[in-house]
Amino acid sequence: MRKAAMKLYYCETLNPRKACAAARFLQADVEFVRVDLASGEQRSAEFLALNPNGKVPVLQDDAGTLWEANAIMCRLSDAVASDFWPHDHRQIDVLRWLSWDASHFTRHGATLWFETLIKPLFGGEPDVAVIEDAKTSFRLHARVLDDHLAANSVAVGKTLTVADFALAAALPYATDADIPLAEFRHIQKWYGRLEELNAWQNPFPA
Amino acid sequence: MRKAAMKLYYCETLNPRKACAAARFLQADVEFVRVDLASGEQRSAEFLALNPNGKVPVLQDDAGTLWEANAIMCRLSDAVASDFWPHDHRQIDVLRWLSWDASHFTRHGATLWFETLIKPLFGGEPDVAVIEDAKTSFRLHARVLDDHLAANSVAVGKTLTVADFALAAALPYATDADIPLAEFRHIQKWYGRLEELNAWQNPFPA
Repeated sequence: MRKAAMKLYYCETLNPRKACAAARFLQADVEFVRVDLASGEQRSAEFLALNPNGKVPVLQDDAGTLWEANAIMCRLSDAVASDFWPHDHRQIDVLRWLSWDASHFTRHGATLWFETLIKPLFGGEPDVAVIEDAKTSFRLHARVLDDHLAANSVAVGKTLTVADFALAAALPYATDADIPLAEFRHIQKWYGRLEELNAWQNPFPA
Repeated sequence: MRKAAMKLYYCETLNPRKACAAARFLQADVEFVRVDLASGEQRSAEFLALNPNGKVPVLQDDAGTLWEANAIMCRLSDAVASDFWPHDHRQIDVLRWLSWDASHFTRHGATLWFETLIKPLFGGEPDVAVIEDAKTSFRLHARVLDDHLAANSVAVGKTLTVADFALAAALPYATDADIPLAEFRHIQKWYGRLEELNAWQNPFPA
């Protein structure tokens, strides 16, 4: 049996989701390896040798291991020579949105995802004050993105980049995690187009 | 009088600090423009036209405006054709550390900076529970960076990159903001070398 060029360690959670979607979107030559977070596999010595942070996703190839989903998306893009991670004048603008997203957008969407959907799985109670704070911050920053997407079909340039996948990371959970997406119609339209991609709809192995 | 190629809007706060330090380190052709956060200048219509987020730093040149300090550091590096933002095999690794830093390291250092040093300036009370949480998270992730720096003199490769400046962003405030830096001797050694740079020690106009 042919060996894939890279292994992508994942679980069906928020950050691995965008890395898996990127691998499928780019048709990168990866083998998907599931890490069972529920049983604590990410804290095994074997997994910590791949990523000392004990988190998924991790990308492994002959050169070594790479963690952080955004870096993995860029690496996969380079591997297939795509401009999903562009190397021209768009690159700085992509960096702007990756950075803004991590601090100001998915940060709050991910908090809502965690409080509403993940904590209860482990017997925790959603923290109402944390949820209200996250919604306020999400709305404040979503306004900036919504205005940007009123005049632009994608985050940067004319085609999808890693910035779009990063910005969209929490949005598959919008309904279940009560992320106030419906108030932002340009984000909704842009996200609707992303949802039409099979790679985005079905990022994980069956 | 000669006009600088770019304007860098800043204030003497955490995120602009790394952008200003990068501009000096790279000897980029920028004019420093101070934004008076205390009087709310960042919420003026004029400033919001530069950055709808109402935050510094912002870089402005003939092509437009750029916000997010990490993107600005990369842009400044490109402007002077430096490998401070590398375009070779190191780039993905730099992205890894930028991403990790935003979510797991400076995130918590910046919380300590904000709670301890900034909130009191505006009559707020530091939140003890938030401070304790941030210290716990900081220590957890600092261990990963400390182990990395035990075997590496800089974050990526053999020379300073934007990753080092990003990772160091909260550390000038370590003593005053009670960031538990002293427990991590490899981070301390690495940061000590950064402190020897005049650009890092004195990032702001006099």
